Amino acid sequence: MEDIILNAQSLKSVIHCGAGAFATYATKLGGKLFIITDSNVYALYKGLIEKTFGNAPTFVLPAGEKSKSRNSLFKIFDKMIDCGVTRSSTVVALGGGVVGDIAGLAASMYMRGIKVVQIPTTLLAQVDSSVGGKTAIDYKGVKNVLGAFYQPSEVIVDPLFLSTLPARELRCGLGEIIKYSAIDCGIYGTLSQNSDKLFDLKFLENVTADCIRHKAKVVTEDERDTTGARKTLNLGHTTGHAFELYYKRKSHGEFVLIGTYYELYIAEKKGICESCYADSLRALITKVIKNIPAYADAEKAALMAKFDKKNDEQSIVSMIVPKSVGESYELKLPIAEYAKLIGECAEKIRGEKC
Amino acid sequence: MEDIILNAQSLKSVIHCGAGAFATYATKLGGKLFIITDSNVYALYKGLIEKTFGNAPTFVLPAGEKSKSRNSLFKIFDKMIDCGVTRSSTVVALGGGVVGDIAGLAASMYMRGIKVVQIPTTLLAQVDSSVGGKTAIDYKGVKNVLGAFYQPSEVIVDPLFLSTLPARELRCGLGEIIKYSAIDCGIYGTLSQNSDKLFDLKFLENVTADCIRHKAKVVTEDERDTTGARKTLNLGHTTGHAFELYYKRKSHGEFVLIGTYYELYIAEKKGICESCYADSLRALITKVIKNIPAYADAEKAALMAKFDKKNDEQSIVSMIVPKSVGESYELKLPIAEYAKLIGECAEKIRGEKC
Repeated sequence: MEDIILNAQSLKSVIHCGAGAFATYATKLGGKLFIITDSNVYALYKGLIEKTFGNAPTFVLPAGEKSKSRNSLFKIFDKMIDCGVTRSSTVVALGGGVVGDIAGLAASMYMRGIKVVQIPTTLLAQVDSSVGGKTAIDYKGVKNVLGAFYQPSEVIVDPLFLSTLPARELRCGLGEIIKYSAIDCGIYGTLSQNSDKLFDLKFLENVTADCIRHKAKVVTEDERDTTGARKTLNLGHTTGHAFELYYKRKSHGEFVLIGTYYELYIAEKKGICESCYADSLRALITKVIKNIPAYADAEKAALMAKFDKKNDEQSIVSMIVPKSVGESYELKLPIAEYAKLIGECAEKIRGEKC
Repeated sequence: MEDIILNAQSLKSVIHCGAGAFATYATKLGGKLFIITDSNVYALYKGLIEKTFGNAPTFVLPAGEKSKSRNSLFKIFDKMIDCGVTRSSTVVALGGGVVGDIAGLAASMYMRGIKVVQIPTTLLAQVDSSVGGKTAIDYKGVKNVLGAFYQPSEVIVDPLFLSTLPARELRCGLGEIIKYSAIDCGIYGTLSQNSDKLFDLKFLENVTADCIRHKAKVVTEDERDTTGARKTLNLGHTTGHAFELYYKRKSHGEFVLIGTYYELYIAEKKGICESCYADSLRALITKVIKNIPAYADAEKAALMAKFDKKNDEQSIVSMIVPKSVGESYELKLPIAEYAKLIGECAEKIRGEKC
């Protein structure tokens, strides 16, 4: 086990990583607790939850991204008020990215902010979303448009939960892990040398700590995403989010991988990324998603990027693309040119498949 | 004019005070603006708003505390999204406490926080609620239960708006001003020596800056209300809020005055506050509200204090009471004893009236 410290301006957050972290730290949480989880996690871990948190009130969200909604948020508040949650209570977010995002927002708003402890149960939440304090719900079709920067006082990252994850959930987490490999040379080295172990849980446990260490450093430097450091964590996300809005079917992590794959085409075409490095990243991506979809209407889907809240000007698309090992680059393109290049990439993939 | 700096941990907030502040600073606000105001302010100042902010989108809330609701908050978000408000836009909160509270919360949540400038138009908002970053809505009958600590980048405090305020609104602001006199010896001196000028706008302009200076100091020290310094600003508010929940009819500031009057009885009875000092504060209070209500069911109403979010334990009531000039004291009482004393005070007032 290892403790990683995230010294954010607003709060010092301690991330307990490794096998045994749940048994050691979840049982030590003091004061009145209010548990938020989802139906998948609850079905699998009801016994463990009751054993660990006794009769603490538990709110169970329906599993899935649709729960990141206004209605779910206020149903949580209803129960918090009914159960007499006070300023000194602690919210425990036990679940994947959706649970962490909405529970974090609920904790940030309730009585203007009560403690929250994140216990991520998916690979994606463990390597990325549970750390750094970004919380949100979706609204009116805009992802994460309402939220807060709100640091958890503790994050408990235990591989215990990964054993029950379906392969698709692992792929989803690998989306963010491969993103880290494109901005952190250490993680790039580890993944490149162990590309046959990407689905090996023991291997993932170690890489998870590497990713968290990277994120903790970046968030310590740029908690509120204003100086540019934190922006690098959005690599692959511009196109990923646009496809996610348009196609919906796949999960966030899968779209990050697909988005990175498409943006690599642009980065190469624009002379930002060397071919051999782009090839090595593509090789990692296709270890996780064998067949990158050659979307027939990729150009149209790419136009959804204008709804990304990261874009101040709807006519310009900003994206973070890989440049060289450990280095990324912020590329800004007129939306029409961007969409055209995305369309070209889809055509290229189609050609390769023939 | 005078600039008061509030150096909060999260953001440096500049408070421009004095006649002419609106003309000087509101016209200088750069970038895309989104104005939030209420129907009273809009009816009086539509021309000024259009002249100052051009065709910036303007959301007009129905005037009154009922607008501090979930529905109003999400109507604001609807319009922000429809108008394409981005991360670099600025929310302008032009109105009293209700507008400032809900607009501040909307700005804090939209895209995880965009800039907000507070332009308070009531005396209460100018001396108190627009400064310090407390934002909130009411929910399920609990006042301010959902909110955020979110500092405005600027506050523009201009007496220009006070000239159109009804006397009742002045009384309401005087509620908070007299609260400041009970925790700040300078303000106590000023009010005691000028108790005949309490409704004089020129006099109020100067006292306003004194109150803001006091608040800025306290919030700089204790932004998130955790170390105790900020708690002193709740003097009179425990009973004030309880009565507000129970009786509803009067405004927040009036209830703060009534609450302070009732709590002075407790502070004296418990030997915390000397009689002559309590008398001098009562004299100030009755300059603003001549007849303090001798509520028939005051004891029952006081039990509402258990719903105050400041109370962690529902069986204990915490209140900040005047001790001596410039000094307050946190008194904790079992709720039954507290309610009984409040009932006694009502009886005493009834007796004095006979």
